[in-house]
Amino acid sequence: MNHEPPERAAVAALAEEFLVSLREWIAIPSIGADPAHHGDVARSAHWLADALRADGWPEVAVWDEGPALPAVYACWPAEDPAAPTVLVYGHHDVQPVDPLEAWEHPPFAGVVVGEELIGRGASDDKGQVAMHLLGVRAHLAATGATAPAVTLKFFVEGEEESGSPHLADLLAGHTADLACDLVVFTDTPLYARDAPTVNTGQRGVLGAEVVFTGGTSDVHSGRVGGGIPNPATAIARLVAALHDADGRVQLPGFYADVVEPTAVERADYAALPFDEADWLAATAGGARAVAGEKGWSTLERVWTRPTAEVNGISGGYTGPGLKTIVPRDASVKLSFRLVPDQQPARIASALREFVAAHTPEGVTAEVRLRGDGVPPYAVDVTHPANVALYDAVQQAFDQPVRYSRTGGSGPAAVLHDVLGVPVVYLGATLPDDRIHAPNERVVLPLLLRGAEAAARLWRSLPERLS
Amino acid sequence: MNHEPPERAAVAALAEEFLVSLREWIAIPSIGADPAHHGDVARSAHWLADALRADGWPEVAVWDEGPALPAVYACWPAEDPAAPTVLVYGHHDVQPVDPLEAWEHPPFAGVVVGEELIGRGASDDKGQVAMHLLGVRAHLAATGATAPAVTLKFFVEGEEESGSPHLADLLAGHTADLACDLVVFTDTPLYARDAPTVNTGQRGVLGAEVVFTGGTSDVHSGRVGGGIPNPATAIARLVAALHDADGRVQLPGFYADVVEPTAVERADYAALPFDEADWLAATAGGARAVAGEKGWSTLERVWTRPTAEVNGISGGYTGPGLKTIVPRDASVKLSFRLVPDQQPARIASALREFVAAHTPEGVTAEVRLRGDGVPPYAVDVTHPANVALYDAVQQAFDQPVRYSRTGGSGPAAVLHDVLGVPVVYLGATLPDDRIHAPNERVVLPLLLRGAEAAARLWRSLPERLS
Repeated sequence: MNHEPPERAAVAALAEEFLVSLREWIAIPSIGADPAHHGDVARSAHWLADALRADGWPEVAVWDEGPALPAVYACWPAEDPAAPTVLVYGHHDVQPVDPLEAWEHPPFAGVVVGEELIGRGASDDKGQVAMHLLGVRAHLAATGATAPAVTLKFFVEGEEESGSPHLADLLAGHTADLACDLVVFTDTPLYARDAPTVNTGQRGVLGAEVVFTGGTSDVHSGRVGGGIPNPATAIARLVAALHDADGRVQLPGFYADVVEPTAVERADYAALPFDEADWLAATAGGARAVAGEKGWSTLERVWTRPTAEVNGISGGYTGPGLKTIVPRDASVKLSFRLVPDQQPARIASALREFVAAHTPEGVTAEVRLRGDGVPPYAVDVTHPANVALYDAVQQAFDQPVRYSRTGGSGPAAVLHDVLGVPVVYLGATLPDDRIHAPNERVVLPLLLRGAEAAARLWRSLPERLS
Repeated sequence: MNHEPPERAAVAALAEEFLVSLREWIAIPSIGADPAHHGDVARSAHWLADALRADGWPEVAVWDEGPALPAVYACWPAEDPAAPTVLVYGHHDVQPVDPLEAWEHPPFAGVVVGEELIGRGASDDKGQVAMHLLGVRAHLAATGATAPAVTLKFFVEGEEESGSPHLADLLAGHTADLACDLVVFTDTPLYARDAPTVNTGQRGVLGAEVVFTGGTSDVHSGRVGGGIPNPATAIARLVAALHDADGRVQLPGFYADVVEPTAVERADYAALPFDEADWLAATAGGARAVAGEKGWSTLERVWTRPTAEVNGISGGYTGPGLKTIVPRDASVKLSFRLVPDQQPARIASALREFVAAHTPEGVTAEVRLRGDGVPPYAVDVTHPANVALYDAVQQAFDQPVRYSRTGGSGPAAVLHDVLGVPVVYLGATLPDDRIHAPNERVVLPLLLRGAEAAARLWRSLPERLS
């Protein structure tokens, strides 16, 4: 009879303490979007710093220098000075909880229902950061060492839910502290409970608003209708021109830099369980059909293909009833999801060019970019660190593991660009954890598997990266 | 040396009394859209009824039977029972006055500045109804008779600014009272002070809202963007498909019933003074270019061509900043200006057909019509009554008179359809009278010319219609 692997046993032994501790952290409403809760964001940072110190981390700091909300940094050097250094990235700020009445349990009570822990941040991202604290403890317990096999650093920011506006500056200001050989990014889910996956990428995003203005005021459509340009019609024609009949985005050069996923990844996506009706109901907000770029499956479309989506459109009279006017102006909010190696700045230029080409005579156009955008990121799946991570996840989950990606956006590319090292992804939550929504939950046994995977990874990495 | 024509002299003699009386009427804030002013609408009706009685009208009634706001009816039979009967249509309800702070004089004070009378309703439509009271007095004074040469009826409704929702019912309930050979419709302007015109038509209108719904909730565009239909994109594509590159509306059969203006009318439009820059600034709300259906001038476009205009469009997130969602739904408010012989019901069917053909898979469409619409109307310019009216206006204004039309909509077709008689237009206001806007005014000398034209018309009609 086989013994249980030491990492699994160590995790099991620490599981109860882990849950008590995570519930304590969830009780702190660290809502970054709400200035009234910025004190709680600081409390959350200090809670994490104290927890790290209690775990024996020799170097722990709360970075609260402004303008960024407090971030937590910790370092635990390996005994072997030649061992690689790994930086774990996560965040401790959480989303707002409205509508409060839709929660079945108070969002900061950390109620446990069966195998699930309910609460804001349980999945995104306190649960996964706590999973890493547990992973380090299990690694030490499993190896019997007093220091990890790799030099471990934690960097847990407080502004991810606000779009990480100061992250690049914060990283640039602490390059010596943060110097590492690898980033393990922990803010992405598994594909499904019965289909664990290793995430290999996130799409980027560029947001913009286009405003078309005609005259100086709304005008009565009886008096002038049919005789002047209608900015709302013009904005509709701009939007209609964004895609061709095959669903391909028509910005000039939009696909020039697109790198397609590898054959291994596409084969994995095709092998994942996918029920279209389930996906539409559970993931796609009750949408009634799939749609998108011709020639790609739904998972490929949402993980690996760039998009142009209308997030909002408005112009003219939008109240009850009718008001017969030709509107003065109209606008559309667009977001472009980007994939490697598209760059937000190049897409912004292409958008300006496209808008100029679709602005009719008598209409003036304004393109307002929403920041600089977030670049996309994809892992080199053949990188030894990714292979090691893949193996650790497969061992921890006792199941075949496939590759997946995430359609949303995160700061992986920023970490890669500023720190100059590869980023790999280790996450153990689920896409239906209701993050950003009422009744957020996390499935506790999955977090324990994730902690085991992390513990196995720390043990294996020195050899794999040598 | 010629004597002044007797109608002109009679109008001049009554001008001072006319102004006193009109200012009194304007002082009553008969704002039909505001229930708080419905008592004032009734007061306005009774003021008019009293004024008619004071002028000697033998039969005067306020129709206040609900649900319509009070209307005024009056009849003054001709001495000759074989004389034609003419019904004058106007309205005594007025538009709201917001924004009040934009008025240079109180809207109900009836301040006179030079040749202009300032006030809500001065032009639309109390001024023109009062002009007709003056016209009848002048007619009697000029002819020296104790009864008019034609049997005159007045019908002055109280709901025109609300879209005359009960007009057809009101007319149908009083067909014996309202029986006539001709309607003189008095709620349209001259083309310009130095270019008097006889109006020969109004466009109709059909309003509708189209709602496209995808799923049951907004969804995060990172998670599903590129994989499901976007209702806002779909509504934009619907709107973009409404017109072809030549600006022609693409509803099936949209132009099937369109009757083009006569050669005489088109020649008149071409001969009217038209400065594009002035029109854009003064009439078109500061629009920067003309635009519209290929092959037609601006005046033809706004007077004689049917349109499809977006009055409002909305969907998804329209607040400050960005929210990266695929919206659950999107909608567009459309109005179609119609020209003879387009019928609102047929256009409504064509719209439903068009929307069905442009609803993508996975999106459900709802078409909400805004009532039954208002049918268009055009005068047969060769009708003897119109020729008589044209001659009367030319004599009264001492200038060449041309034909014009009105791009907006009114109940002329309803009067025509229910009463079964021709409708002709007699108005003496101006397009830049700021009706429906702050600082509404009327140019008093033009109203006097209009009253003279009416007086001349009543004298000439028995012979012209015999």
